[in-house]
Amino acid sequence: LNRKLKNILLKIEYDGTDYKGWQTQRVFGSRSKTKTIQQTLENVLIKILKEPVKLFASGRTDSGVHAQGQIANFKTHTQIPLTKLKIALNSLLPCDIRIKTVKQVGLDFHARYDAKSKVYQYAILNKSEHSVFTRNFSTHIRYPLDIGLMRKEARAFLGKHDFKSFQASDKRVRNSVRTIKMISVKKQRGYIYIDICADGFVYNMVRNIVGTLIEVGRGKLQAGSIKRILKAANRKYAGPTASARGLRLLKVNYT
Amino acid sequence: LNRKLKNILLKIEYDGTDYKGWQTQRVFGSRSKTKTIQQTLENVLIKILKEPVKLFASGRTDSGVHAQGQIANFKTHTQIPLTKLKIALNSLLPCDIRIKTVKQVGLDFHARYDAKSKVYQYAILNKSEHSVFTRNFSTHIRYPLDIGLMRKEARAFLGKHDFKSFQASDKRVRNSVRTIKMISVKKQRGYIYIDICADGFVYNMVRNIVGTLIEVGRGKLQAGSIKRILKAANRKYAGPTASARGLRLLKVNYT
Repeated sequence: LNRKLKNILLKIEYDGTDYKGWQTQRVFGSRSKTKTIQQTLENVLIKILKEPVKLFASGRTDSGVHAQGQIANFKTHTQIPLTKLKIALNSLLPCDIRIKTVKQVGLDFHARYDAKSKVYQYAILNKSEHSVFTRNFSTHIRYPLDIGLMRKEARAFLGKHDFKSFQASDKRVRNSVRTIKMISVKKQRGYIYIDICADGFVYNMVRNIVGTLIEVGRGKLQAGSIKRILKAANRKYAGPTASARGLRLLKVNYT
Repeated sequence: LNRKLKNILLKIEYDGTDYKGWQTQRVFGSRSKTKTIQQTLENVLIKILKEPVKLFASGRTDSGVHAQGQIANFKTHTQIPLTKLKIALNSLLPCDIRIKTVKQVGLDFHARYDAKSKVYQYAILNKSEHSVFTRNFSTHIRYPLDIGLMRKEARAFLGKHDFKSFQASDKRVRNSVRTIKMISVKKQRGYIYIDICADGFVYNMVRNIVGTLIEVGRGKLQAGSIKRILKAANRKYAGPTASARGLRLLKVNYT
């Protein structure tokens, strides 16, 4: 028997603007966007492979959030060579979803359970007007932000903390303890980029961290605030949730 | 009389993807995009100023072409302060058009007749797959391009030449002599940027120059080709027209 089961890993880039996030959801009576990245990909895979396909991603991304290096895997009996599969996928997928890598991995690999950490990047354009070229991929903040203050305060997030203050109040998980391994605030060509690497993220965690750091940058929260907000373990003390359009899943680490 | 006539200069950035170019055109029975940047801007200006407005740009940009620094001017009797006018414009304009500068200039200033030179930039993504984030603002070339060869050949464009070989065959002008003051080919973060500064451009000139340089980069045209093609003064010898989406009007120089 040649048609052995294979486990295929996909590295995916997507512009999340027109999608209701990664995961397939049934939406009743909703007038807004209803298509998901997962469903769009599965439909194209089924068309090419002519067998049922179930995709597992490293994690969901929310409505409007982008990915530069989302990882997903699926099992298949196909004998199509992987280079041909990549070409077929990219020719059938809409141009806001691109497959960057297709490779065979061990049968026990699982994109979600095996992920050791993930890196998200948040982009802020800190100018008087937004840019038409990055308007879907960054947030526009008109008032001046003190990046030095933001960088200093951001250090308080490093390490293992209960992120109750930074999780969406309507989507709480029992255990909101996560470890932030790296957080950086840098300025490049007019943009402020906030990169966060953690072993996991509670719902809206990056967007709430960014919203709070923006409050720091504009002087609405003083030095030492982040430490106090983490301790309070209450969503009401953190800043507002930053817009989804500025957020992208940069990378998933498996080692 | 306080309501003196003023001449107002606008610096405009736009994502040309959904527009039929700068200029107002009447299109009969066309199903494709029909709105123009000029008409969109004039409609908003008329709404704010409550008087008829005629905008003059430094030049037209084609369907799908972008601008980072388009300049236009209009005459008005308004007494609205210019900072307020800018805010009003940006709040009424769609988010793919932004006003970056509003300033009063001498009554004899004309955005087109006073322009000394213009700089266009063309962006090529030279990777196996296009990027979802820049897909509307760059052209994707899959096969490897030799940037050294392109840079060398590009030098032949410098100076005063008859650009008959590089003008759209269906839109010829009587005098196709133009002077290229600067042309550069540079690589930055995976993109190849071709910048061209000239005292004027015949129809499709930048896109035909870029299409020809791409042929050079992939080895389809040999060293010395540009010189010969310029001399031939015939459109059929130059390369194909590069896609509009990679092109943006970067800057208009008035000195």
